[in-house]
Amino acid sequence: MSEKRWSVYLSGEIHSDWRERIESGIAEAGLPVDLSAPITVHEDSDDCGVAIFGAEPDKFWHDRKGAQLNAMRTQTLIREADLVVVRFGEKYKQWNAAFDAGFAAALGIPYITLHPEQHDHALKEVDGAANAVAREPEQVVQALAYIISGRMPAVMSGTQAAE
Amino acid sequence: MSEKRWSVYLSGEIHSDWRERIESGIAEAGLPVDLSAPITVHEDSDDCGVAIFGAEPDKFWHDRKGAQLNAMRTQTLIREADLVVVRFGEKYKQWNAAFDAGFAAALGIPYITLHPEQHDHALKEVDGAANAVAREPEQVVQALAYIISGRMPAVMSGTQAAE
Amino acid sequence: MSEKRWSVYLSGEIHSDWRERIESGIAEAGLPVDLSAPITVHEDSDDCGVAIFGAEPDKFWHDRKGAQLNAMRTQTLIREADLVVVRFGEKYKQWNAAFDAGFAAALGIPYITLHPEQHDHALKEVDGAANAVAREPEQVVQALAYIISGRMPAVMSGTQAAE
Amino acid sequence: MSEKRWSVYLSGEIHSDWRERIESGIAEAGLPVDLSAPITVHEDSDDCGVAIFGAEPDKFWHDRKGAQLNAMRTQTLIREADLVVVRFGEKYKQWNAAFDAGFAAALGIPYITLHPEQHDHALKEVDGAANAVAREPEQVVQALAYIISGRMPAVMSGTQAAE
Amino acid sequence: MSEKRWSVYLSGEIHSDWRERIESGIAEAGLPVDLSAPITVHEDSDDCGVAIFGAEPDKFWHDRKGAQLNAMRTQTLIREADLVVVRFGEKYKQWNAAFDAGFAAALGIPYITLHPEQHDHALKEVDGAANAVAREPEQVVQALAYIISGRMPAVMSGTQAAE
Amino acid sequence: MSEKRWSVYLSGEIHSDWRERIESGIAEAGLPVDLSAPITVHEDSDDCGVAIFGAEPDKFWHDRKGAQLNAMRTQTLIREADLVVVRFGEKYKQWNAAFDAGFAAALGIPYITLHPEQHDHALKEVDGAANAVAREPEQVVQALAYIISGRMPAVMSGTQAAE
Amino acid sequence: MSEKRWSVYLSGEIHSDWRERIESGIAEAGLPVDLSAPITVHEDSDDCGVAIFGAEPDKFWHDRKGAQLNAMRTQTLIREADLVVVRFGEKYKQWNAAFDAGFAAALGIPYITLHPEQHDHALKEVDGAANAVAREPEQVVQALAYIISGRMPAVMSGTQAAE
Amino acid sequence: MSEKRWSVYLSGEIHSDWRERIESGIAEAGLPVDLSAPITVHEDSDDCGVAIFGAEPDKFWHDRKGAQLNAMRTQTLIREADLVVVRFGEKYKQWNAAFDAGFAAALGIPYITLHPEQHDHALKEVDGAANAVAREPEQVVQALAYIISGRMPAVMSGTQAAE
Repeated sequence: MSEKRWSVYLSGEIHSDWRERIESGIAEAGLPVDLSAPITVHEDSDDCGVAIFGAEPDKFWHDRKGAQLNAMRTQTLIREADLVVVRFGEKYKQWNAAFDAGFAAALGIPYITLHPEQHDHALKEVDGAANAVAREPEQVVQALAYIISGRMPAVMSGTQAAE
Repeated sequence: MSEKRWSVYLSGEIHSDWRERIESGIAEAGLPVDLSAPITVHEDSDDCGVAIFGAEPDKFWHDRKGAQLNAMRTQTLIREADLVVVRFGEKYKQWNAAFDAGFAAALGIPYITLHPEQHDHALKEVDGAANAVAREPEQVVQALAYIISGRMPAVMSGTQAAE
Repeated sequence: MSEKRWSVYLSGEIHSDWRERIESGIAEAGLPVDLSAPITVHEDSDDCGVAIFGAEPDKFWHDRKGAQLNAMRTQTLIREADLVVVRFGEKYKQWNAAFDAGFAAALGIPYITLHPEQHDHALKEVDGAANAVAREPEQVVQALAYIISGRMPAVMSGTQAAE
Repeated sequence: MSEKRWSVYLSGEIHSDWRERIESGIAEAGLPVDLSAPITVHEDSDDCGVAIFGAEPDKFWHDRKGAQLNAMRTQTLIREADLVVVRFGEKYKQWNAAFDAGFAAALGIPYITLHPEQHDHALKEVDGAANAVAREPEQVVQALAYIISGRMPAVMSGTQAAE
Repeated sequence: MSEKRWSVYLSGEIHSDWRERIESGIAEAGLPVDLSAPITVHEDSDDCGVAIFGAEPDKFWHDRKGAQLNAMRTQTLIREADLVVVRFGEKYKQWNAAFDAGFAAALGIPYITLHPEQHDHALKEVDGAANAVAREPEQVVQALAYIISGRMPAVMSGTQAAE
Repeated sequence: MSEKRWSVYLSGEIHSDWRERIESGIAEAGLPVDLSAPITVHEDSDDCGVAIFGAEPDKFWHDRKGAQLNAMRTQTLIREADLVVVRFGEKYKQWNAAFDAGFAAALGIPYITLHPEQHDHALKEVDGAANAVAREPEQVVQALAYIISGRMPAVMSGTQAAE
Repeated sequence: MSEKRWSVYLSGEIHSDWRERIESGIAEAGLPVDLSAPITVHEDSDDCGVAIFGAEPDKFWHDRKGAQLNAMRTQTLIREADLVVVRFGEKYKQWNAAFDAGFAAALGIPYITLHPEQHDHALKEVDGAANAVAREPEQVVQALAYIISGRMPAVMSGTQAAE
Repeated sequence: MSEKRWSVYLSGEIHSDWRERIESGIAEAGLPVDLSAPITVHEDSDDCGVAIFGAEPDKFWHDRKGAQLNAMRTQTLIREADLVVVRFGEKYKQWNAAFDAGFAAALGIPYITLHPEQHDHALKEVDGAANAVAREPEQVVQALAYIISGRMPAVMSGTQAAE
């Protein structure tokens, strides 16, 4: 059978350790997955544009230079992803996460959303175009293990991950 | 010269009169524009799915049925739009607006964002992929008048629309 | 607002009056919908190929000639549909209906399935890629009325259509 | 000459050993083929969704969660396949097999159907869009050997595989 | 039901009256078809390039200028056709007809070939990607009548058109 | 035969009357052509962005706002053009004209370049992807007359238009 | 600099040694090229379909089975080629070569035609969409050497290859 | 995390050492980048066509043969690039650079322009569709280091690169 490596892009929230939990879960499970993500150092993703291409007195253009530089990374990686995970944390607007979900949807790339129940109603359109809604990063790892190798979780998620 | 009618989709916030202001501005200016939009009656867009296809005890699936029904309208209209306007109001998560922006971006459909300055930083990625950032609906009308007919605004926007 | 006419393709079962019920429902509701469908005269759709291009002694090629002639109609109409309705009746294999659903899904065209509950499990993948699952043709009309005009059904479907 | 490896997706029936027969035929013939397939453990493909993302009291949503999880595997693998084989066994509805055929057809990916003669008429549209109709898995292996290396079968199929 | 007009491009041979026979057949049958075709005045299609853009001493570039001018017509019309008919007459190379067939095939536009039996073997690849093979223009008209309106031919083709 | 209207986009130089000459030539010839073009009032195309969305102290961003506003017009019109004419005048950089040519080429939209011989070498890549190279606007009209109706020019261009 | 391997598909005539001459020329020049081609054993490409899937009494369907089996090889390889070479020999109809050229053109894949001068006029449309017209296989090798590595031919082709 | 290699195409000016500066910067920084470019030996890119395919007395066709040969390299490499850098030097028309920018834009491939301030106004449309505008090759290297690895420049560009 095929030994395909799967490309999975991890979009969204950069203030908790969810990417690390997915990464270590994948390593532990020995899954053939190449993860990719935006630059997650907050200040760098804000200031990269002006640091490289020159300062801007107006914050609007300061942000623009950074956003367009970041987009060269993020849109390229999403375009070549097999699957996207879109994380919404408890705080912040996180409009770029929703943007990435729409971007993936239009390209026909399936995605899993990852967010607490409190956002369910506000995210109903984003969830409605998703192939799965996860609450915990470990569920994403379980989903990948199933998608790639057909492995079922050892413990049912009802027990393990509070939903 | 061509008498093309332009299809413009108005995405996002449903709690203020911005769509009406754009619509009446277009009527006043006599522009050949066909506007389209999501269903903007909030409760209907929430309940349409269960009203038609049957009640759901679980709010999550109640929302899902509605969201997927709404998506048949919104994604069809965005796909055939020439331009999209994406409005972020002062409150609410408005993740579906950002989703629509990403959807349009991936399809190569240009869009204008419309939001107050207070969101500039949080929306920098969404603005970074936009072709223009407007503060007031009247600027969208002026932009359409220019795009379609080359008409310049009577008064410079610095005066007219507080930016 | 836009006066878009919607193109809706009605795929699948040809032994009951579901298309007529949708058609008369649309007429009654005054919806701007252009319906299209495969040729629904069973013998003609079987024999069209040999009737036009010459008889075949082998039933396999008899069928092939008909199928490829029908495909020129069906695939063209699906490609230009805004929405597709895919009907599975109580009997028969109806593999062409599932084929049409997959065809629409790959093109990013949203579809509604229409079938009795008894098929739910066997159709779970086809339903899983659908934007809605209807039980009765009248629900499809209600869905179109909502999608196109935002009209909500007069009576909740829980009462009207047994689900 | 090119040493291309060919990606072949094996869609459909999961109750007989046809995939194993193709796999061992390919191994024996030493063909550079990477096979892929849906998860073929029936209960797992039914229950994967709820096992990972949480139980559902309603069988409809239980199925939905599984179907959409499975779709992340199947649609990704079909999209990157060079060729698809679609198997219809003697029993069951097998609508997902026909769905996959339509999905491949719309993407311009050639496919071979594999089914007994008894289904010929019911599958005429699905066969009509196929590049070949096989009766036995060994014919699929022979077809791959020819497609990839130009190797002709040792024995004519009229003798070897009852048709 | 939909009142779609069908766009049909008539590619290939320019020395017999097959286009006129299709055109008058369509008129007689009252079919909603818009026919299009290459420029069929042989000398003009050869000389158009140099007549407009200036003479060329070298026949090779004389031909090039004409061919590329003609291509602006033909490729535009094929791209927007619903169906293509590709005619191979009894004489001449007619490589442009085969080119058009390949062009349509790659775009997913169905086509009907129209040629005498004598070419069957040489055209097997071109026929193999076609949705039908006709011998007489009247069969094309019958096919269109069926595709568009479901009308079956009055007389079986076995009698009317020798195959 | 089809009564298709042809959409032709006129890209490039805005300092001479070439668009008017094409327009009046088309009118005279009675060709079914819908012309479109960028906004050709030079100052307006420079200042439109700041006039509508607010002044910018930095000329770089002043230009950016205008360019992106203009792009909403130009890219939309090019995308839906059947043919593009790209004019390079005797002076100026005219990089946007070459940009439009590349944009059309990547979309598979045929274009005609229109420029004096002095630019032939510098434009060889842009001409190399074109379907024709014209020297005078009247040749473009003649080309359209031929493409659309098969009409040959009354006088050979060798005489009429100095090449 | 990039060490890209180039995929080149060799379409067309199967009765002379042109493929071998290109292959040995590439080997001699040490170019990073992966060649691919249709099956070039004439009888096998005719009989492969019936040999594998069962005999057909009617030659028309005998050919069809072979052609559609061959198409699974040829269309897959053309789709993933960087460049295509299309060879027309001195004899035969060679419609499949022209078909392949049209197929490549519609996909935006550049191709080189390879044929004697005698076919220039009949092939003017096929040449008109090509990026080069070669007379000898060695010119194709030289073109590849230039395209891939910028290497210019040692001797000008005017001397070496009679044109 | 993913070890993706990035493909970057360097389009435009061939008279200064900007490509070498980017190449050595990338080597120094140890970035996983595969660079590609057009053939940069000026005379060869002019004469390659006639050197291989035979002399042309008319300079126009001499140029055409070269341009179309070069296009097989450049368009193939741009199509498979992740990112494009488009350089405009101080002199020359450089229309092919702008053509490449438009080509990339239409394909949705992000690009960085690289040019002195003096061209800012003339390049405003080309810059307006770019994701960044650089003044020095070292800024391109810094951008790649950030895009690929999130590395921020050691010294702010305001100091290092005069802007």
